[in-house]
Amino acid sequence: MRNVAIVGACEIPFGVLQEQSLRQMVCEAAAGAIADAGIEDKAIDFIRVANFAASDFADQNMLGAFVGTAIGLPNVPALRVEGACASGGAALREAAFSIAHGRHDFELVLGVEKMNTKGSAAETMAIIGRGNDLEVEQSVGIGGPQGFALAACRHMHEYGTTREQFAHVAAKNYRRGLDNPVAHLRKDVSLDKILNARMISWPFTLHDCSLVTDGAAAVVLGPADVASRYNAEPVRILGSGMGMSAFSFSGKDHLATFAATKKAAAEAFEQAGLTPKDVHCCECHDCFTATEIINIEDLGFFAKGEGGPATAEGKTDLGGQIPVNMSGGLKSKGHPVGCTGVAQAVEVTKQLRGQAGPRQVHGATTALTHVIGGPGSLAVVHLFGKAW
Amino acid sequence: MRNVAIVGACEIPFGVLQEQSLRQMVCEAAAGAIADAGIEDKAIDFIRVANFAASDFADQNMLGAFVGTAIGLPNVPALRVEGACASGGAALREAAFSIAHGRHDFELVLGVEKMNTKGSAAETMAIIGRGNDLEVEQSVGIGGPQGFALAACRHMHEYGTTREQFAHVAAKNYRRGLDNPVAHLRKDVSLDKILNARMISWPFTLHDCSLVTDGAAAVVLGPADVASRYNAEPVRILGSGMGMSAFSFSGKDHLATFAATKKAAAEAFEQAGLTPKDVHCCECHDCFTATEIINIEDLGFFAKGEGGPATAEGKTDLGGQIPVNMSGGLKSKGHPVGCTGVAQAVEVTKQLRGQAGPRQVHGATTALTHVIGGPGSLAVVHLFGKAW
Repeated sequence: MRNVAIVGACEIPFGVLQEQSLRQMVCEAAAGAIADAGIEDKAIDFIRVANFAASDFADQNMLGAFVGTAIGLPNVPALRVEGACASGGAALREAAFSIAHGRHDFELVLGVEKMNTKGSAAETMAIIGRGNDLEVEQSVGIGGPQGFALAACRHMHEYGTTREQFAHVAAKNYRRGLDNPVAHLRKDVSLDKILNARMISWPFTLHDCSLVTDGAAAVVLGPADVASRYNAEPVRILGSGMGMSAFSFSGKDHLATFAATKKAAAEAFEQAGLTPKDVHCCECHDCFTATEIINIEDLGFFAKGEGGPATAEGKTDLGGQIPVNMSGGLKSKGHPVGCTGVAQAVEVTKQLRGQAGPRQVHGATTALTHVIGGPGSLAVVHLFGKAW
Repeated sequence: MRNVAIVGACEIPFGVLQEQSLRQMVCEAAAGAIADAGIEDKAIDFIRVANFAASDFADQNMLGAFVGTAIGLPNVPALRVEGACASGGAALREAAFSIAHGRHDFELVLGVEKMNTKGSAAETMAIIGRGNDLEVEQSVGIGGPQGFALAACRHMHEYGTTREQFAHVAAKNYRRGLDNPVAHLRKDVSLDKILNARMISWPFTLHDCSLVTDGAAAVVLGPADVASRYNAEPVRILGSGMGMSAFSFSGKDHLATFAATKKAAAEAFEQAGLTPKDVHCCECHDCFTATEIINIEDLGFFAKGEGGPATAEGKTDLGGQIPVNMSGGLKSKGHPVGCTGVAQAVEVTKQLRGQAGPRQVHGATTALTHVIGGPGSLAVVHLFGKAW
């Protein structure tokens, strides 16, 4: 198997992008990633598009062909990969295998979601809710906020985790997002404001929830061993893991642990020959504040039950033991569902290149990304490292 | 690379399945394919779900996780692949590469679409139309019927192909579908009835168009060289090709040829070391009657312009030069969009095993499947052969 690397990366500024069409969004991200790589666009052998629901949000399905033609590569084979909020991580993984095995030399992995298209929040939430089982959970009112709130409650019950500790996740991620020019919501929000905001689904206030964001991001993956061909030093993919568990909150063995994350992390760490102690920065799936705390435990950075106190003590902030979501995460940078996993890869590329500005984790040479899709069912973990 | 084979196959009876939920449909297809293979279900390493629009039609997205949990394999990594009407062929191809390269031993490839869920035909057609570009063609009323009608007109103009020749495609496929117990619409329809039915989009009457079908099909792919492990002799995948072209009818160099099909066929034939003359039976994408005529030319069975006369002369019927769509095709068996490519693989498995009953192509040892997605943009071609 060949070593695979990110050789080009770009994300567009996230937000509520009323002035940008889906076409404009994907063109900007793709052109940016290809230019960043420094390869000719005709070198791209395959396009993988990570997208959750453009058909529902934007009346546009068949995203593979749509993107290929939009970006001026109509003859390059292209497919869409969908795994709800984990779509981006999954597309990256499929592309990495393809290059590792020598099927393709260069793949463009593009994540996109345009979500702010509907007239009502109810309609938007119904579309997002289709990432949960219709008969088992959607139909009884359990979507993302309600399901992850159950996980949060269980974590509080078992480990004594507090709403204040959850709020520390939001406060940190808002703070870091202030330093990320592409972040959707850039404002400093106090613990007090977070705790006393409008309740969405107990224990989550508005500020415990991630954003409904329009965004696009793209990376070019290629073989790591022809580094001189690229504009910047390639960022090696050291490990890739995927885990799965039941497609409902009610089907889980343990609500406060995502078994899928543990499996994905174990696979990625084994491949890379690394342990959590070796990781310098992490972008993980903070769809809700409690999810970040569960994740940093499941990923092995902290023992079960220690995620809350560690967060409150600043161990996951810049300068701490393991800086988590220095991009601002899904909370501040935003969560364009199918795009998120690809955007995480763009952020760690910036971190490993030392291009992350005020949010830079100094001296970072290894990084981890993590997404989960649906009711914590599908998790994808990647480990990245400097190849130079 | 390892040789890959279909080692188990199953399709459920197609139709308007008001009494069967999406869950019941996928369970029946998956259980059938796994039982047919004779392997234990825990041997499945990965599930690929081909689906176009369950989110729009059935309020259910995240089909990978949905299927895994539904069929009792909640911990097996699963992803959805979407490429409009070519989804099934594309999922098969991704799975074949994965096994050929040794990433997985066994993959379940499951195609499913439940389409008869909406109150009006207009709503159904709008969802199907999302497989075309919103800004370029959907918005000016060009969906499948209108776009493929343009291709038909161009074929008539360039080669003198007639509406009667198109009608022969429908008559043949209806006739063959009579002998397929899983076919959606089983009735004999005369040329006269086909030609004089309600006009949909000139030159297509109702009978020139494929069906809006609910269906599910599954195959188990595995290594070909452990044949003794399976219930039936494995059906070898001899070649796999994928081609792409512009994501609009207006962007094509030539309306009466699908460049994507030509590229996909060239790749598959080269891999297999075969020519069109070596193929004994073919399932190709007859989304409209004219499409079958264009396809059998693009696939190399007939020279450009000879598809119409060849069809009228019975060269593509049972006992002819190259029997095409002996399953009844998309016209009679039906066209559950994301499922179609997988269902084609099930049909040729039956043909190569000699289990196709009255529609059996006697002595068939090689077969070809072909799907196209969107406005002829994405084509996937597979070649299969007896491994025994």
